[in-house]
Amino acid sequence: MDYSHVSCAHVTQTQNHRADPLTVLVSIGTHATLQTHLHLEREAAAEAIGKSSSKLQIASFIGAAEEVIMRNKQVILRDTVSGFPKESDMLVITGSTELKLPEGSSSGAVLVKNLYLSCDPYMRGRMAKRHPGDSYVNSFNPGSPLTGYGVAKVLESGDPKFKQGDFVWGITGWEEYSVITATEALFKIHNTDVPLSYYTGILGMPGITAYAGFYEVCSPKKGETVYVSAASGAVGQLVGQFAKLLGCYVVGSAGSKEKVDLLKNKFGFDEAFNYKEEPNLVAALKRYFPEGIDIYFENVGGKMLDAVLLNMRIHGRIAVCGMISQYNLEQPEGVHNLTSVISKQLRMEGFVAPSYYHLYGKFLEMVVPAINEGKITYVEDVVEGLESAPAALVGLFAGRNVGKQVVVVSRE
Amino acid sequence: MDYSHVSCAHVTQTQNHRADPLTVLVSIGTHATLQTHLHLEREAAAEAIGKSSSKLQIASFIGAAEEVIMRNKQVILRDTVSGFPKESDMLVITGSTELKLPEGSSSGAVLVKNLYLSCDPYMRGRMAKRHPGDSYVNSFNPGSPLTGYGVAKVLESGDPKFKQGDFVWGITGWEEYSVITATEALFKIHNTDVPLSYYTGILGMPGITAYAGFYEVCSPKKGETVYVSAASGAVGQLVGQFAKLLGCYVVGSAGSKEKVDLLKNKFGFDEAFNYKEEPNLVAALKRYFPEGIDIYFENVGGKMLDAVLLNMRIHGRIAVCGMISQYNLEQPEGVHNLTSVISKQLRMEGFVAPSYYHLYGKFLEMVVPAINEGKITYVEDVVEGLESAPAALVGLFAGRNVGKQVVVVSRE
Repeated sequence: MDYSHVSCAHVTQTQNHRADPLTVLVSIGTHATLQTHLHLEREAAAEAIGKSSSKLQIASFIGAAEEVIMRNKQVILRDTVSGFPKESDMLVITGSTELKLPEGSSSGAVLVKNLYLSCDPYMRGRMAKRHPGDSYVNSFNPGSPLTGYGVAKVLESGDPKFKQGDFVWGITGWEEYSVITATEALFKIHNTDVPLSYYTGILGMPGITAYAGFYEVCSPKKGETVYVSAASGAVGQLVGQFAKLLGCYVVGSAGSKEKVDLLKNKFGFDEAFNYKEEPNLVAALKRYFPEGIDIYFENVGGKMLDAVLLNMRIHGRIAVCGMISQYNLEQPEGVHNLTSVISKQLRMEGFVAPSYYHLYGKFLEMVVPAINEGKITYVEDVVEGLESAPAALVGLFAGRNVGKQVVVVSRE
Repeated sequence: MDYSHVSCAHVTQTQNHRADPLTVLVSIGTHATLQTHLHLEREAAAEAIGKSSSKLQIASFIGAAEEVIMRNKQVILRDTVSGFPKESDMLVITGSTELKLPEGSSSGAVLVKNLYLSCDPYMRGRMAKRHPGDSYVNSFNPGSPLTGYGVAKVLESGDPKFKQGDFVWGITGWEEYSVITATEALFKIHNTDVPLSYYTGILGMPGITAYAGFYEVCSPKKGETVYVSAASGAVGQLVGQFAKLLGCYVVGSAGSKEKVDLLKNKFGFDEAFNYKEEPNLVAALKRYFPEGIDIYFENVGGKMLDAVLLNMRIHGRIAVCGMISQYNLEQPEGVHNLTSVISKQLRMEGFVAPSYYHLYGKFLEMVVPAINEGKITYVEDVVEGLESAPAALVGLFAGRNVGKQVVVVSRE
């Protein structure tokens, strides 16, 4: 994927400016691997931002009088992260952007106003230093805004698939305005009778993840036993509901009483438990699955996977969606019970949503009516403003979110 | 599977009798879970065995004069094993057996003379104490002969699928004569223009394992890169040759210079290396697979699997056939790099041959001509006599065998 469309504000000031992001100085310059769309001179930028306020809509006019320069708050990754990410690994700055498609990038690109941003566990991997080819997505570029899934409104389009005023979801920047050149990763939103934020979750990447992961990867059959870890999260809550709709026996685990209550009372899981209160995960799973687990939807990894392997049934399937317990460890935990894969003839399959985007239309046909008929429900954990985004993202890895973690950049 | 057909000699004497297996006393009795076919009285048995010699064909006549009682050497498991198995975990005794199908078991059963026995890594799991449902095969019963794959000649048949004089391969006992009631696990041998011992290997369970594991589980395509560990073993040598026939690039690893030479010079692998001489397995694999591995045929587990996971390509497949490095550890090693399963969208699938026996005919149609035309070759490591069987089986786990480990019980 090409993330070079993301405008770059190279931060030169240090931490003492973080208290008020509006006072952070923005220097002009092109990050080694990125194009900049900032046309400010250093002094002009300092002046403009010095005068800016959170109400300021038009920051300044620089150069030709017809160029509209808008304030553009951005969430910047300071440097690659190892260990547990902290809020201070990110910086909320206020740069500015020219409110038009830049010359040369207009063909095929779109200029969008970002509305909702999605906090997803896979983003942890992108904060780390990785080598090309290690994964299907590249690392974030330190000094540049994060990128990720979001819902946005098209302000200007150089791509015939989109027109001004369209709502879209897909990969955008963690900022107020983005120029998106990789429009093949954007989906036009047709159904607007559901909350737009749902396109960061149930109707977006997590939704297609749950759908493809369960129906395609797990090969589920009616009556089978299904275990979902991190079950109240963006994906888990849907997998459990899909499995119930198919007629499976479904148990979920989560990390608080509140989440366990959600699983049982809102999402209709047959059983749920708080893994933090279980001294012995193997025994806990044996209690809920005396005959063993046919399908494990894996979001956690580590000790949980080890306990599951001992409780799988012959010919069981493990859809490996995520391993959130491992992402922040310097050295991942060892998984010791993999010989069960042979003796029980298990299939473990890792997958990512983009490999299943061809199913998106079919997925919508199933899930939109199910939402409207109340057969499927969805819980979001919404925070307001880009300033709240770093804490929201970091909170994912501490399990602070209850349901899908969404950041509101703007509601319109 | 039902192993209750295996005749039971319950050993009551202790280790001081082991020096000469012919002097071990055999007591009469029925093991809690097994039927015995021994009709000897304790005293008569002691007397018969006291008089026996290795040349003795007919040990004694007991009871009705028409009953022919044959010497029946057996390899008995003393007790369940933890850690590395030792020769002394097994005992070679000389019991005797009535040379006819026992009353009541004649319908559907066959009496066979065992010719060749197969030493297979999966047998290690059966030496351990396991619970029903832990695996697709049960543990061995301490005090009873081991069971496993072998080639045998039918002496008497109560199953219309087999007749006297037929050669068969399948699950039999580690003894000279066996009554097999689970005849659904027996295959009649039609092609006898290849060595009969091949039906413990290339034309038996290891052959169908390699065939199903490679063609069915790995979903291979011409031009893909294939890595095989334990590559000179019964299964690995075939997988490498199948992959070469399909037009793949194939690298194998083994544990000695002799085996590495075999891989390159006899089996035609593109490259091979001695894993014991590699200080860094990740770097070694990177050297042989600069663009990554599409298919890993897993026979080893542990550190090898960890190194492979870091070298897999996106959408790679890992056929998990065995993990021989783990079978003798009190606590299996941890595998740390499983998050690669997600980021690289890998499929890991454990499998066992019996799930693919429906392909046996198709497999023979492919492999027998290939053997006869010299397109596929096979190397066996043959030891003579049941007395050599415990050392041969234990040797598997130290990598002492070069090629398929076979025990000759009798050549006709």
